[in-house]
Amino acid sequence: MKAPMALALHGGAGVLTRAKLNAGAEREHRAALRTALDHGWGILRAGGSALDAIEAVTCDLEDCPLFNAGRGAVYTLAGTHEMDAAVMCGRDSRVGAVAGVTAVRNPISLARAVMERSGAVLLAGRGAEAFASECGFSTEPPAYFHTDARREQLERARRAGRTAVDHDGMEEKYGTVGAVALDASGNLAAATSTGGITNKRPGRVGDSPVPGAGTYADNNTCAVSCTGEGEAFLRCCAAHEVAARMRHGGAVLTAAAEAVIHTVLPGKGGLIAVDRSGAVALPFNTEGMFRAWRSTKETEGVAIFRDA
Amino acid sequence: MKAPMALALHGGAGVLTRAKLNAGAEREHRAALRTALDHGWGILRAGGSALDAIEAVTCDLEDCPLFNAGRGAVYTLAGTHEMDAAVMCGRDSRVGAVAGVTAVRNPISLARAVMERSGAVLLAGRGAEAFASECGFSTEPPAYFHTDARREQLERARRAGRTAVDHDGMEEKYGTVGAVALDASGNLAAATSTGGITNKRPGRVGDSPVPGAGTYADNNTCAVSCTGEGEAFLRCCAAHEVAARMRHGGAVLTAAAEAVIHTVLPGKGGLIAVDRSGAVALPFNTEGMFRAWRSTKETEGVAIFRDA
Repeated sequence: MKAPMALALHGGAGVLTRAKLNAGAEREHRAALRTALDHGWGILRAGGSALDAIEAVTCDLEDCPLFNAGRGAVYTLAGTHEMDAAVMCGRDSRVGAVAGVTAVRNPISLARAVMERSGAVLLAGRGAEAFASECGFSTEPPAYFHTDARREQLERARRAGRTAVDHDGMEEKYGTVGAVALDASGNLAAATSTGGITNKRPGRVGDSPVPGAGTYADNNTCAVSCTGEGEAFLRCCAAHEVAARMRHGGAVLTAAAEAVIHTVLPGKGGLIAVDRSGAVALPFNTEGMFRAWRSTKETEGVAIFRDA
Repeated sequence: MKAPMALALHGGAGVLTRAKLNAGAEREHRAALRTALDHGWGILRAGGSALDAIEAVTCDLEDCPLFNAGRGAVYTLAGTHEMDAAVMCGRDSRVGAVAGVTAVRNPISLARAVMERSGAVLLAGRGAEAFASECGFSTEPPAYFHTDARREQLERARRAGRTAVDHDGMEEKYGTVGAVALDASGNLAAATSTGGITNKRPGRVGDSPVPGAGTYADNNTCAVSCTGEGEAFLRCCAAHEVAARMRHGGAVLTAAAEAVIHTVLPGKGGLIAVDRSGAVALPFNTEGMFRAWRSTKETEGVAIFRDA
């Protein structure tokens, strides 16, 4: 019997109804999710590591302007981009993360460099940028990260005089991204990358780069990447809570993941998770979540709404 | 029967042997711990909240130059101070934190303001400083935070060409601070404040300001504040892991806290924890931990070494 493998990815959760997403936009999002899924699955099938697969998938989604990470990141209150990302390996609980990065093209790759080369787990702000420079990471001018849609979203939030959570009902665009994988060697890994929330206060850090909140992986339980109201995921240590329910409560992946999203989380959002058997869980308590998955155990798919 | 109350505080864990701490320094540390303990206990006994008690205790320890938080914080590689702090309420899982603060006299009070007034959970760097300014927090020049001992520690670390973890064997000074409390209303709260590690890379964030890693509180389980190698606490979500072992594994406080420090934590350090019954746990896997505690359930004490 072949070793199980699994891959799941997300492009954010929110009030996604068919009425809000026109047919052209829907096709574009589905195509982007499919391309990233096939890319990551190809890496796993060729014997690549879960870490390599999730980094590649997350880079694809960062490079795609449809999602709120890397190119296409939302704007802060100051009209800037501040991006957060984290990556974690389930084999040895190594983890790397960056917060408040403004110019690095692929924050997820910088998070991996933090894990592998800095001695630290989390680097924030200018210190993270300085480390990126030391490591020779390519940077981009603000124009690279710009999209008209995100700028318009900022203007609407400013007019409304509020810090718009990207996942609010009044917003049509969503998009923290993430990926989780199980490779043929039995190793789990998780990655999350985001621009945060539109019109956010500079310096605000959400759950994405926080180990145990938005991102977590442990070979004995699961790999998890979250999306939604970051503060809610931080308050309940959502990603680690999924693993804890498996490890200490004896829950299976699906039950643990659904309990966290539907009964523990004090807010809106979703998560993707895989376990060592190749099981996949994709719960969300919003109208929809951009998601794609493939497993040697389950059927594959690309979906946005509750009914696919 | 009167409602149980409990208070515990720490001033850091490390290679604390009697040979390394002369009698005068030992007396000074014990006196500072006792003063903070009595201050916090007075608040609880007068019917004050756990949140007020832990903030007051942590401010006392921040203001004391003997400990690595606020005045007396260690130096970064750049010769600056970057301080992190977090506070969490067990009643409603509200949490506030700051990272990379350079000029605020009491980072723990700023963390509380983030919780109560910002809408965010975690603010980092200049964004945190800007929020402090908006809120009217008093700031101090770098000279306020300076101590000769910390500067000498930086010079030794620089000569050795290494990022000295504050808790390394070669260092005589220690000192992340924290407090946990149970008040007469049955509410738990936790606080942690630190200057991080000597000669650290600017932007490095440890476990102290991360909910679930260095700081956590939940009325159904416990309140926890950690100290030690921050990266190790981040990798295993140490504070939340104590709570998870109680909630999902049925462990009592002492067993959960000791398991995390002695079998889960991939590094050196300790933690303080209290539960809703007034039980107190103070495990560490280092030579010593500056600590003090008082409970309606247990005897009170001030201790540094394994044998008190």
